Amino acid sequence: MGKKIIGIVGGMGPEATADLFMKIIKATPAEKDQDHLRVIIDNNTNIPDRTKAILGQGVSPVTEIKSTVSKLRHAGADILVMPCNTAHYFYDSIVTDEKLVFLHMMRETVKHIVKHYPKVKKVGILATSGTITTRMYHQALEAQGLIPITPEPDLQDKVMEAIYSSWGIKAGKYAKARQYLIEVGNELMAQGAEAIIMGCTEIPLAMKSGDVKVPLIDATLVLAQSAVELATS
Amino acid sequence: MGKKIIGIVGGMGPEATADLFMKIIKATPAEKDQDHLRVIIDNNTNIPDRTKAILGQGVSPVTEIKSTVSKLRHAGADILVMPCNTAHYFYDSIVTDEKLVFLHMMRETVKHIVKHYPKVKKVGILATSGTITTRMYHQALEAQGLIPITPEPDLQDKVMEAIYSSWGIKAGKYAKARQYLIEVGNELMAQGAEAIIMGCTEIPLAMKSGDVKVPLIDATLVLAQSAVELATS
Repeated sequence: MGKKIIGIVGGMGPEATADLFMKIIKATPAEKDQDHLRVIIDNNTNIPDRTKAILGQGVSPVTEIKSTVSKLRHAGADILVMPCNTAHYFYDSIVTDEKLVFLHMMRETVKHIVKHYPKVKKVGILATSGTITTRMYHQALEAQGLIPITPEPDLQDKVMEAIYSSWGIKAGKYAKARQYLIEVGNELMAQGAEAIIMGCTEIPLAMKSGDVKVPLIDATLVLAQSAVELATS
Repeated sequence: MGKKIIGIVGGMGPEATADLFMKIIKATPAEKDQDHLRVIIDNNTNIPDRTKAILGQGVSPVTEIKSTVSKLRHAGADILVMPCNTAHYFYDSIVTDEKLVFLHMMRETVKHIVKHYPKVKKVGILATSGTITTRMYHQALEAQGLIPITPEPDLQDKVMEAIYSSWGIKAGKYAKARQYLIEVGNELMAQGAEAIIMGCTEIPLAMKSGDVKVPLIDATLVLAQSAVELATS
């Protein structure tokens, strides 16, 4: 034993939650069930939309997220992860207890880039308008001396459509979303991006490594790897 | 609101747990996060191996499974599901509280066959030796007047290898496992099977509809559909 329990603050969205769970399983060296990590998940679909809240068009998700955090801690979770980039806007309001071990998705992602791609300076960001406007990846990148590159407004609209429209990722449809995301990714490269962060957990459901010619960093995968490393260390 | 909360008694194994979770998401009509069902999962990898316990070679999983059931109920789960066929051997020891709503995987699967394939009489079973020996699907099928067909001992060994060996499904490897399962499936058809139950949650990870020429019933998918139907009704 001695392994720690991972708690997933989920439901934002459900598929991204399942995706993180599967990535945690795949990132764990195991030949039988008992070699795997215990993971407790609250796929809380009562959490209000994060982008709407940030844009002032909806209620804050903080109360509902904090109730999920309490539920997971009470159930025994030692390390918390939240597979929703946009929700990290509320990180400081959620993580008010300094004893809480709660991995920060953007900081883990930027640490990963610095470690594995030390020559990269300019980093493109594919994310929701909430994540872009609030500069969450900007801050994490700039703190490590890296330069953020973001899409022009019309292309940012395309990213939002790929995620939110009725033919898009949150509706479980991927083909057209992938086309749009590749188009925006190529534009970020034209602006100088030497690596691109998939900074919305829904994006890796539609877009895969190789879809653009620079390293495509899956923030969900990085979060899974960090959690497994911490739980088994 | 008014929707019920699904609790997944998980960890047996982790991939089958993630598979059921994803099947619940896909079975829910939804266009945005808030349309989805709340699902709470305890991927409890401390639960001892079920087949070993049944064969008298290991400790009983009941105490650990009951602790997960308590955890999930305390967290608010209304409807419990357990994505592990073999573990249903212990169903009566686990479900001792008559107020507990705990779907029984075999009974749900056989109900599904009777409803969707009313002409089928002989049903093949692909499952662990624990499930076969304890006649769990046999009982559920016979209770509905259907005839169970099982593999000969040497072919049953191949099913176990496909699931448990170092090149098999529990180790995350599918290609050779799929070949073995198709071979056994064809043999069940030669014995008269008009439909085949994939009666181990790991099997649908390697084997797909169309791999044999009769309907292939995914017990995990049936369980997901039953849970969603009950939670939204």
